[in-house]
Amino acid sequence: MSNPGDLSALAALISEGSVDPAHVVAVIGKTEGNGGVNDFTRGYFTLALMTLLGRALGLAPEECARRIPCVLSGGTEGVLSPHYLVFCREPVGQAASEGAEGDFGDRKALAIGVAFSPVTPAQVVGRAGHVLMVAGAVRAAMADAGIDDPADVHFVQVKAPCVTTARAEAAVRAGHSVVTADANKSMAFARAAGAFGVALALGELDEARLDERDLLSDFSIQSDRASISSGVEVDCNEVIVLGNSRAWSGDLRVAHRPMADALDLPAVRDVLADLGIVADPQVTGEDVGRIAGVLVKCEPDRRGLIRGNRHTMLDDTDINAQRHVRGALGGLVAGVMGDTRIFVSGGAEHQGPDGGGVITVIARGKGELA
Amino acid sequence: MSNPGDLSALAALISEGSVDPAHVVAVIGKTEGNGGVNDFTRGYFTLALMTLLGRALGLAPEECARRIPCVLSGGTEGVLSPHYLVFCREPVGQAASEGAEGDFGDRKALAIGVAFSPVTPAQVVGRAGHVLMVAGAVRAAMADAGIDDPADVHFVQVKAPCVTTARAEAAVRAGHSVVTADANKSMAFARAAGAFGVALALGELDEARLDERDLLSDFSIQSDRASISSGVEVDCNEVIVLGNSRAWSGDLRVAHRPMADALDLPAVRDVLADLGIVADPQVTGEDVGRIAGVLVKCEPDRRGLIRGNRHTMLDDTDINAQRHVRGALGGLVAGVMGDTRIFVSGGAEHQGPDGGGVITVIARGKGELA
Amino acid sequence: MSNPGDLSALAALISEGSVDPAHVVAVIGKTEGNGGVNDFTRGYFTLALMTLLGRALGLAPEECARRIPCVLSGGTEGVLSPHYLVFCREPVGQAASEGAEGDFGDRKALAIGVAFSPVTPAQVVGRAGHVLMVAGAVRAAMADAGIDDPADVHFVQVKAPCVTTARAEAAVRAGHSVVTADANKSMAFARAAGAFGVALALGELDEARLDERDLLSDFSIQSDRASISSGVEVDCNEVIVLGNSRAWSGDLRVAHRPMADALDLPAVRDVLADLGIVADPQVTGEDVGRIAGVLVKCEPDRRGLIRGNRHTMLDDTDINAQRHVRGALGGLVAGVMGDTRIFVSGGAEHQGPDGGGVITVIARGKGELA
Amino acid sequence: MSNPGDLSALAALISEGSVDPAHVVAVIGKTEGNGGVNDFTRGYFTLALMTLLGRALGLAPEECARRIPCVLSGGTEGVLSPHYLVFCREPVGQAASEGAEGDFGDRKALAIGVAFSPVTPAQVVGRAGHVLMVAGAVRAAMADAGIDDPADVHFVQVKAPCVTTARAEAAVRAGHSVVTADANKSMAFARAAGAFGVALALGELDEARLDERDLLSDFSIQSDRASISSGVEVDCNEVIVLGNSRAWSGDLRVAHRPMADALDLPAVRDVLADLGIVADPQVTGEDVGRIAGVLVKCEPDRRGLIRGNRHTMLDDTDINAQRHVRGALGGLVAGVMGDTRIFVSGGAEHQGPDGGGVITVIARGKGELA
Repeated sequence: MSNPGDLSALAALISEGSVDPAHVVAVIGKTEGNGGVNDFTRGYFTLALMTLLGRALGLAPEECARRIPCVLSGGTEGVLSPHYLVFCREPVGQAASEGAEGDFGDRKALAIGVAFSPVTPAQVVGRAGHVLMVAGAVRAAMADAGIDDPADVHFVQVKAPCVTTARAEAAVRAGHSVVTADANKSMAFARAAGAFGVALALGELDEARLDERDLLSDFSIQSDRASISSGVEVDCNEVIVLGNSRAWSGDLRVAHRPMADALDLPAVRDVLADLGIVADPQVTGEDVGRIAGVLVKCEPDRRGLIRGNRHTMLDDTDINAQRHVRGALGGLVAGVMGDTRIFVSGGAEHQGPDGGGVITVIARGKGELA
Repeated sequence: MSNPGDLSALAALISEGSVDPAHVVAVIGKTEGNGGVNDFTRGYFTLALMTLLGRALGLAPEECARRIPCVLSGGTEGVLSPHYLVFCREPVGQAASEGAEGDFGDRKALAIGVAFSPVTPAQVVGRAGHVLMVAGAVRAAMADAGIDDPADVHFVQVKAPCVTTARAEAAVRAGHSVVTADANKSMAFARAAGAFGVALALGELDEARLDERDLLSDFSIQSDRASISSGVEVDCNEVIVLGNSRAWSGDLRVAHRPMADALDLPAVRDVLADLGIVADPQVTGEDVGRIAGVLVKCEPDRRGLIRGNRHTMLDDTDINAQRHVRGALGGLVAGVMGDTRIFVSGGAEHQGPDGGGVITVIARGKGELA
Repeated sequence: MSNPGDLSALAALISEGSVDPAHVVAVIGKTEGNGGVNDFTRGYFTLALMTLLGRALGLAPEECARRIPCVLSGGTEGVLSPHYLVFCREPVGQAASEGAEGDFGDRKALAIGVAFSPVTPAQVVGRAGHVLMVAGAVRAAMADAGIDDPADVHFVQVKAPCVTTARAEAAVRAGHSVVTADANKSMAFARAAGAFGVALALGELDEARLDERDLLSDFSIQSDRASISSGVEVDCNEVIVLGNSRAWSGDLRVAHRPMADALDLPAVRDVLADLGIVADPQVTGEDVGRIAGVLVKCEPDRRGLIRGNRHTMLDDTDINAQRHVRGALGGLVAGVMGDTRIFVSGGAEHQGPDGGGVITVIARGKGELA
Repeated sequence: MSNPGDLSALAALISEGSVDPAHVVAVIGKTEGNGGVNDFTRGYFTLALMTLLGRALGLAPEECARRIPCVLSGGTEGVLSPHYLVFCREPVGQAASEGAEGDFGDRKALAIGVAFSPVTPAQVVGRAGHVLMVAGAVRAAMADAGIDDPADVHFVQVKAPCVTTARAEAAVRAGHSVVTADANKSMAFARAAGAFGVALALGELDEARLDERDLLSDFSIQSDRASISSGVEVDCNEVIVLGNSRAWSGDLRVAHRPMADALDLPAVRDVLADLGIVADPQVTGEDVGRIAGVLVKCEPDRRGLIRGNRHTMLDDTDINAQRHVRGALGGLVAGVMGDTRIFVSGGAEHQGPDGGGVITVIARGKGELA
């Protein structure tokens, strides 16, 4: 990507036949904006992507956008490189692979599922009803991926709607209340509800113990597999589930690890070990090429300390705190991977340990490379 | 440090007798400014420090500042924590330690030397004469440290003067020319001249091959032990040399490694190994307490690529490129150290490999901790 | 000022005898920081100022700071120039002037008063008790200035304490509640309470109608003469009152006007007209020299519109909204004054009309210039 | 515009028949990016605009972009509102107006011309050949506009190509030299060459005295009617000329004034007076609706002073200097206009007086409003 509107790499893969646009089920990418409210690199990329896919599929760009979840995180601070992952799903028989067994011994391969919840009204955003809607969509995406056992799920991306001033006013006029009329705060509540929904669907949170007052309050409730974003551009919850399943073939696998804090280098090593990749201390040689995607979710510690020492991310009027933490985590994870194409996203409330986050890696099996 | 003017920690050490202000020979610190031209956290810290030491020593603050080099780098991006290192030198007999031998087998201990060059006129800054002045001051600081062999030197900090508009005008009126009248560019030339001067003094560059046209041009000429800053606040070159020497006692040692690029995690592991500290992948337990200081010098790769992938640091109008790279390197090195008190400074022209930099660590011997 | 620690201009005035440090009663200044939580230019200036005055008065810097209110606003966006106003008060007889009558016909001259409220506990900040404390201090400062009639007051600067995390925790442990534990929000509440306190003391708000729920809620309640800042560095409310009084002599006068919005150029013209200065469209000739100080308080319109068109200040993740609005108002007011030494401060809740603010000008009478 | 990709207002005008897409000859707009190298709001707007117009005209977006100059300036600092001006040209007979005579007495009306120079090779950019190419294109655009007398030209917008690293390397391989290989510097040289080209075509600079060494060096050479931007997205010079001509009808007129510095409020009043609009001090009532476009070009004074007082724009590492100056000028001009839809662009080398710039206003005649 030479800029956020540059889809020439995907266009080339499509025109040379490597990617069938009909097989594209989801896109996750990192664009070089500021990652904030006025980050228009996400909209620019989406317009260019949906124009490209729409042209190939004979659909209007808006129609494409309603079928294919596209989750973007702005901000390539520090060493990070703008890039995007295109998830394709091919019917069995076309590209089946037997190779995975040799590497992982269980015949499981990367499985992908997507789902859309019903529209979430403004009065429901960031509340118990929102949690239940997300949980339902996660279960639907699991079914779409052919995954029964929550233990086989390693990554759940949710793009959740938030409350805008206009939506809040409409809800109030209709006699409802909203959790907050502030767009930024409602995004945090929506992310929290999304994480609770994932935790519910994966059995990390018992539905009987669901209490919406715990949202943004009890940070011991979390999901190590949730990666939630929220924005004004959606009105329902879009869900992408990644896991491993025997129902799938191919040489890709996914693994994840919680990160205890922003210095959790052992977690980075361990998630690679889960995929049979040794980083001592850095991934080297052909193993670099085995890694197909690295997804990190993180937060500046809201208590202002990292292992007892003060950090200055939260009090910086010049640089947004999320930009700071993405740059630091990007530097750490890229150093281990030996590659700067890392997806790092902030806003990790209830997603992994408080003050830390989650790392997810998708990699090819060893024997596949020839 | 709760803010850049907070010297309460040093004041407490002085008042409780742990630090004798007469033994303080140099201070190196990281303050929470933007690290740019308008970073006044460095001046604020210096005023507070020199007021404190001056009061203790019966000197005016300005007089203190002329005796004790104080080198500050602004910018605690990402996980970095504001902190400062106070270098003290005690006469032998008072605090001699025999312990180092057991750890390193050569009876060498951390040696510290300082020196000041003569005033560098504006017409000399960033030229061959500047290089020779710095080389002379480095040799003087080595002598002050009692180090004969350049191989025993592991870190040379130089604070070099630059050309300001006023100084340039005065020089031109007096019939001289200056390398540039632009303050920012002259700082880069001054850093380059400083690095060349260190390389000359340490035998990394042959004086016969010194050509001032290579400054900021031939990046194959570099010193792995140079750490240069430049600013309007000095009119001569202030030099701090750190090395290991048998003439010194104490349980501290210093080591360094060049960093090939911004992802050079192996270099971080190796510099620790040089000090007998294992990071697998992170420093743990009592080893964390052994580390007394970590100093990193780095640069955003000026060719725009890191291991073949585009980075966006150099084209960002919102965040200065040096802030980006400090955040990324800070995240990487802090992850290995398990500690966020890392000195990371940008502007590394000719200081370590092009596109990379240098890492230096000061640590205590193992047996010393009880 | 060449930098925030440069007090050389005041030092020169003191050493040449133009300013007697014993007559200094208050300082108001604009420093070149970011104006946010991590703006340390204010602390740097204060340390340098109090060191200078303390040395001249034989006082410790901390003692000086408790006697002389020093109100600083960080941020010299756009054309604004860093500068400070030093308010001196001389006993009658020494520098009495009869000239004012000729210009303004009422023998009134600039009057200055200062006062400090008792310490405001964390549980009181941003509540009705805080409002009453400020009102009391304003009345005390009016008395100090010798002003009886609230109509003679044209400017009331209050520096109010806020709630820090530490203060909040201590209050909660002692069994109290706080209005908010978020430092930034508590600063907004403190500014609101300060503005209500000024309105109360000046008769703009009836004490019987004081309801703390109106703070940051009912923006129709406001004072056109309040200029409030809030910070962690004070624990009581420091108040500076400027007005016109027959009890004072000298050739200075003060006037103020509310600004309806960020485009209120007529208000700028009108406040000058109140002082007999014509701006058509710009102040020219000797009138430029008559202006001794210009103080502006303003806010980005929180509804996102200015005269019906969208502004982007509130949604900018790169530049803080207060920096935006200071730059715009600074450009407007400096254009009328023909001078860039304008004090422009944000955070104008309840200070002037909602979405607008207040402008105050101090100027010399015409006949005084010879 | 709710965001940089929002062309709904133009789409509505087209679909309701108010704007015939075949009549659109140029677009000039202000988008809410940072105005720097990584401002992608310009590309986003252009993609959305050309997609809209292309659909309406049956052309590919790329083809549209080659026919219709679209000049965007990023950065809506302070009070500025994102907006765009669409210039339409209708054949005589369709929309002729006799009304202009009554207002201005000379039967002249706004005339618009566009032209494209041949491709400018990298080795020509920023040199005398570039100046001549621009001059030729300006003359062609004047002819296109039906303007013979340079005195009738009031605004010349040029979008000039610059040297990129890739273009520089290709030129060097082909045996040529380039004025600089640094993209940012080459943009400044390209703007300077553009301004010289405009000055040449309008007779402000004598061709015999053209010396390319004066580019970015002799700032006494300038054009009060030049507005130049430079970017990597063009390979030839795109020119838009605005003037007044008897060959045109309609109720619009254009006028311009040089601005001596960033405080030149009189120039703003005078350009309005040239159009029969009184600002005392602000445009009021129906006159606000008469103003169809305001275009300002400006620069932070490179000597660091405005009317003798220091400004801090050039030394700010947090906010780019062009962002500062756009915010200040935007505040000043919007205050006079009573409207925040002002096009303010930086990078004004040789465009208006050094340290100042140019203001251009397009307005309707008085009698036309009914």
